[in-house]
Amino acid sequence: MIVVFKGGAPEAEISRINRELRDDWGLVPEKIVGKHKVVIGLVGDTADLDPLQIQEISPWIEQVLRVEQPFKRTSREYRHGEASEVVVPTLAGAIHFGEHHPLVVVAGPCSVENEVMIVETARRVKAAGAQFLRGGAYKPRTSPYAFQGHGESALGLLAAAREATGLGIITEVMDTADLEKVAEVADVVQVGARNMQNFSLLKKVGAQDKPVLLKRGMAATIEEWLMAAEYILAAGNPNVILCERGIRTFDRQYARNTLDLSAIPVLRSLTHLPIMIDPSHGTGRAEYVPAMAMAAIAAGADSLMIEVHPNPAKALSDGPQSLTPERFDTLMQELAVIGKAVHRWPQTAVALT
Amino acid sequence: MIVVFKGGAPEAEISRINRELRDDWGLVPEKIVGKHKVVIGLVGDTADLDPLQIQEISPWIEQVLRVEQPFKRTSREYRHGEASEVVVPTLAGAIHFGEHHPLVVVAGPCSVENEVMIVETARRVKAAGAQFLRGGAYKPRTSPYAFQGHGESALGLLAAAREATGLGIITEVMDTADLEKVAEVADVVQVGARNMQNFSLLKKVGAQDKPVLLKRGMAATIEEWLMAAEYILAAGNPNVILCERGIRTFDRQYARNTLDLSAIPVLRSLTHLPIMIDPSHGTGRAEYVPAMAMAAIAAGADSLMIEVHPNPAKALSDGPQSLTPERFDTLMQELAVIGKAVHRWPQTAVALT
Amino acid sequence: MIVVFKGGAPEAEISRINRELRDDWGLVPEKIVGKHKVVIGLVGDTADLDPLQIQEISPWIEQVLRVEQPFKRTSREYRHGEASEVVVPTLAGAIHFGEHHPLVVVAGPCSVENEVMIVETARRVKAAGAQFLRGGAYKPRTSPYAFQGHGESALGLLAAAREATGLGIITEVMDTADLEKVAEVADVVQVGARNMQNFSLLKKVGAQDKPVLLKRGMAATIEEWLMAAEYILAAGNPNVILCERGIRTFDRQYARNTLDLSAIPVLRSLTHLPIMIDPSHGTGRAEYVPAMAMAAIAAGADSLMIEVHPNPAKALSDGPQSLTPERFDTLMQELAVIGKAVHRWPQTAVALT
Amino acid sequence: MIVVFKGGAPEAEISRINRELRDDWGLVPEKIVGKHKVVIGLVGDTADLDPLQIQEISPWIEQVLRVEQPFKRTSREYRHGEASEVVVPTLAGAIHFGEHHPLVVVAGPCSVENEVMIVETARRVKAAGAQFLRGGAYKPRTSPYAFQGHGESALGLLAAAREATGLGIITEVMDTADLEKVAEVADVVQVGARNMQNFSLLKKVGAQDKPVLLKRGMAATIEEWLMAAEYILAAGNPNVILCERGIRTFDRQYARNTLDLSAIPVLRSLTHLPIMIDPSHGTGRAEYVPAMAMAAIAAGADSLMIEVHPNPAKALSDGPQSLTPERFDTLMQELAVIGKAVHRWPQTAVALT
Repeated sequence: MIVVFKGGAPEAEISRINRELRDDWGLVPEKIVGKHKVVIGLVGDTADLDPLQIQEISPWIEQVLRVEQPFKRTSREYRHGEASEVVVPTLAGAIHFGEHHPLVVVAGPCSVENEVMIVETARRVKAAGAQFLRGGAYKPRTSPYAFQGHGESALGLLAAAREATGLGIITEVMDTADLEKVAEVADVVQVGARNMQNFSLLKKVGAQDKPVLLKRGMAATIEEWLMAAEYILAAGNPNVILCERGIRTFDRQYARNTLDLSAIPVLRSLTHLPIMIDPSHGTGRAEYVPAMAMAAIAAGADSLMIEVHPNPAKALSDGPQSLTPERFDTLMQELAVIGKAVHRWPQTAVALT
Repeated sequence: MIVVFKGGAPEAEISRINRELRDDWGLVPEKIVGKHKVVIGLVGDTADLDPLQIQEISPWIEQVLRVEQPFKRTSREYRHGEASEVVVPTLAGAIHFGEHHPLVVVAGPCSVENEVMIVETARRVKAAGAQFLRGGAYKPRTSPYAFQGHGESALGLLAAAREATGLGIITEVMDTADLEKVAEVADVVQVGARNMQNFSLLKKVGAQDKPVLLKRGMAATIEEWLMAAEYILAAGNPNVILCERGIRTFDRQYARNTLDLSAIPVLRSLTHLPIMIDPSHGTGRAEYVPAMAMAAIAAGADSLMIEVHPNPAKALSDGPQSLTPERFDTLMQELAVIGKAVHRWPQTAVALT
Repeated sequence: MIVVFKGGAPEAEISRINRELRDDWGLVPEKIVGKHKVVIGLVGDTADLDPLQIQEISPWIEQVLRVEQPFKRTSREYRHGEASEVVVPTLAGAIHFGEHHPLVVVAGPCSVENEVMIVETARRVKAAGAQFLRGGAYKPRTSPYAFQGHGESALGLLAAAREATGLGIITEVMDTADLEKVAEVADVVQVGARNMQNFSLLKKVGAQDKPVLLKRGMAATIEEWLMAAEYILAAGNPNVILCERGIRTFDRQYARNTLDLSAIPVLRSLTHLPIMIDPSHGTGRAEYVPAMAMAAIAAGADSLMIEVHPNPAKALSDGPQSLTPERFDTLMQELAVIGKAVHRWPQTAVALT
Repeated sequence: MIVVFKGGAPEAEISRINRELRDDWGLVPEKIVGKHKVVIGLVGDTADLDPLQIQEISPWIEQVLRVEQPFKRTSREYRHGEASEVVVPTLAGAIHFGEHHPLVVVAGPCSVENEVMIVETARRVKAAGAQFLRGGAYKPRTSPYAFQGHGESALGLLAAAREATGLGIITEVMDTADLEKVAEVADVVQVGARNMQNFSLLKKVGAQDKPVLLKRGMAATIEEWLMAAEYILAAGNPNVILCERGIRTFDRQYARNTLDLSAIPVLRSLTHLPIMIDPSHGTGRAEYVPAMAMAAIAAGADSLMIEVHPNPAKALSDGPQSLTPERFDTLMQELAVIGKAVHRWPQTAVALT
């Protein structure tokens, strides 16, 4: 349920109502200051409440509306139709993810393999225009005998790459026990596709401060995905970015997954959260990444995540879907063409390092 | 297997070899004149042939290569990497479908409902820049009690719409018995998703002259789809356009199907045939069509098929996924932005009617 | 909508009402004589009818009920909860398919290859207890270069196998143009999975007299499948058997399809039609067939279709999923154990040839 | 790689070879005493080893064979074709899960709601013949606002139910942090479908002693599932039971999931681990449970998990798929018919409490 205030509602009145809803009505009010309106979102046992009765609390209340979706805080209605933005402070300044901001490009290798490799990759993707470095320290692998990531030591290397380049860092957490260590280094904490419904983990990342990148489970419906985001928001962390990375379908012969780009307009209509697309996992083959990255921008994505490795043929994981730094360089120029056409390309993609 | 000739190979020599392969070797040779090379494609029992032995037939032969894919004539190798084009003569001139040509836009209603409606829609989509009119005379419907299309009389109305506008006509054939009637009116004969593996129908459309639009079956793999196209090519008709229209996945709550845009780069690498995208069936909801249409162009589609209806709320079929003519008008302007950015937009989209 | 009569309603009264509903109300009444009740099913424009008004036509009417499902004649409600049966006359007597009858076993090769092979296979499966011979004359094949069936000549061989054994014949029709020839030989005409939504073909098999075996499309929902059956019933042929043959899912590594045995209880609750299971196509591997065949009987299937080939390694199609006659022999004994336990095994499975 | 010994190989020789393979060859040998043969399984970097060289170590070695599957310890080859069994000590004696043992029935509610409810349910399912009680203390729920289980206090109630009935206890662990508490009460620790690829959790349950029930992820391939089991075996715990609980497909209208019973013969050929089927989650509807439970036994399942709730309509979770105790009672009698037919029914299903 949301309480929409009239334009010009006094701050003090809004605060008073906020308190009243909390103290007298036993609800959990959350104040949302949008561009046009102030709204108070209400979560809790609202099924039996009469919107009209709440409306009578103050003449400054314009409307009281039910959120009909099962996901509440995540829904677009909860912010009365306004997009939210996720702001991430980095050494190179604050980066904004959201539909009213330029596209944010995240790039880097699947796994952090060693210092030279990660720092070099960071420099290359930075030079090409990326603003975030991705790199796995803890790797979810199908086989227990496959490379599992360098773990804690890799976190240190990511920190070094940040120091060297100023890029923000995105890395995955797989276990609640590792969250503190990961969050110390990561500017954005990633929850992977296989853990999208690891509800214990969702609650824990929701109870800390770093923004969360929530990848879609490989057979998760849009609704289940938004409910997973709701776990994070409900635990207190409003900074969630949704990342589509390919779903599982009947055909896996050429592309490893089916990148569901229709998730972009669907999510746009359902939620206020920023949307990222990962064409590397989404297709599983480097040669298909450029076309899908271009399509994602044209469809309205707020961010892209692209795997780049200095030597894909020798990558410890996900080589076949990784671009070389050279190919990534060219790709960024191709992307700029679409990005500029839809007015989502950063003014100065190449920062002055 | 393909026989690639050296540049400058004399016409007479190529003909001689063609005859020899047919008469002495018992193969089915097909001469393909590409931009850079002349190639003879060979279909038949080639498993036991020795490429080196064929190479010795003439010093003008550069290479003899096996086509490794199960789809032969449809494969990109069969044309030695060159794209093919489908040229459709229309009252407004020849329209070219193919990767070296501007985007071709096909628009119109799901079903032909009456003359006023179809002619009016044709005028509107023509004015907005479409080059083909789509419209169903025979409609495959899940329920026997649903509107089944006006059949033969609707074919007449499509002919009238062509007369009135000069647009090319695309309409579906559902039964081998109707093919002749349909092909009389249609400039491109459509085989629908549900009939993608109706092999009798494929053989029949392969044995007539009109170009064929082959929609992907809703759970067809890319390979099965190309094998279906191979039926048409094998029967003698090389003019096939492939149309992705959404596949069936586990999530059908918001979008009715999952539009598989990765089919674009995948097909591009596997086949020489032109690629069309149908975002209307692909999502099942008019509000998602614009984002997906833009994405399709960015990803490299050669053609788009978009449902437009003068009054979607009263459409006899597929109303929820149809755009109004006004929305289509705006969409064409949005598409032009992407189309121009990737250099696939027609110079003068609006013809001088 | 159905009109349920009280027990003991006089024949003349039922006929009178039948006429009245047809002539005065403009409906299409269909009289269904069940074990316990007589019912008149009504199809047509019944949305605006008032059940109470119809009830007033006669004091012998017990109830007038709406059929809420989109499939009408196919629904269980349409027969007021009673199962239907499909009776097929064969040289060895009438065979009954239905939930109140013993299991019917259909066996034979994927394709009819030659006379010796088909007659020999027929003798072997008959000796083991099968009542029907399956065998393809027209074969739907993914590749145009694969064996397409011997067509018309194979129909003659099936007729010979029937003469030799007395088995009923089930064979597939792929094209409306072949229906007459196929129906001349077949005791049950099969519509294959790829043609489940070939609505032209459904209408044609619905307009002839032979019972129809309708295989489920590989990505068809239960509802779409029942709507396909409805096409046949609506065209006048009430004798439809539904055959589940495996659906397409994300995992095709070991089993080629996923046999959906839950279709048995689901269909049982939704429709009155008999249910057949095809574990051969359903799994694609001979070694998995016995377990799935036993499961199907335990779950309540009315019939089984099992591929048997005298020499699977040399079969022209579907060898990997075919049992040898010896294995089929053993399987029948294994099946008898389950069949007898659930009281669905024929008293004398082995007929006196 | 496995080392197969000749019959009668002396114990001392086997131990000597075991030591040699560990100390001199740097491998991880695991001795497996089967019914017919003794085998030493070898995991580690065996790709470059020459089987013939190992064979020369001792004349008592019959064969040295590679395990070709990516899952090693989990594969059937690793035990030279022999089934393993999982033995669970309970107050009522040791219960054996495995293909050479009678069917084990696990029953109980989705969630532990209160003491009266869980103890009463335990008594009822015990009286009907179940040997294990299932009941969730920690519940993975799609919505953060849905009942999340009573957690630790529910574990105490499960212990009480065990005391009262002697049934073994199966309950789910969702978080590595809760594992110790759960394992204290549980006789078998369950890893749920959503956590099948929560690799941190798999490693932890592999490093403790209680047997593990590993549910199949809703879109997990058979291979991924066996690789997940491999994580547990590789971590040192050989006691894993695999539970199929329905996969996600395109059709969810009537049954919530598609129960993949073909997993039974497929797993039987690939792995030595015991197989459980959960028809309650597998279909999502109580009315379909009996048919699928019967089918599972006929197909060869080693165990069944069935949801039973004293009052399904008021269940805090999964009511629609729960049987009443009365229905479960009847079901057990129906199952006995199939179970006895295939010689998998316990001699005295009803224990003397």
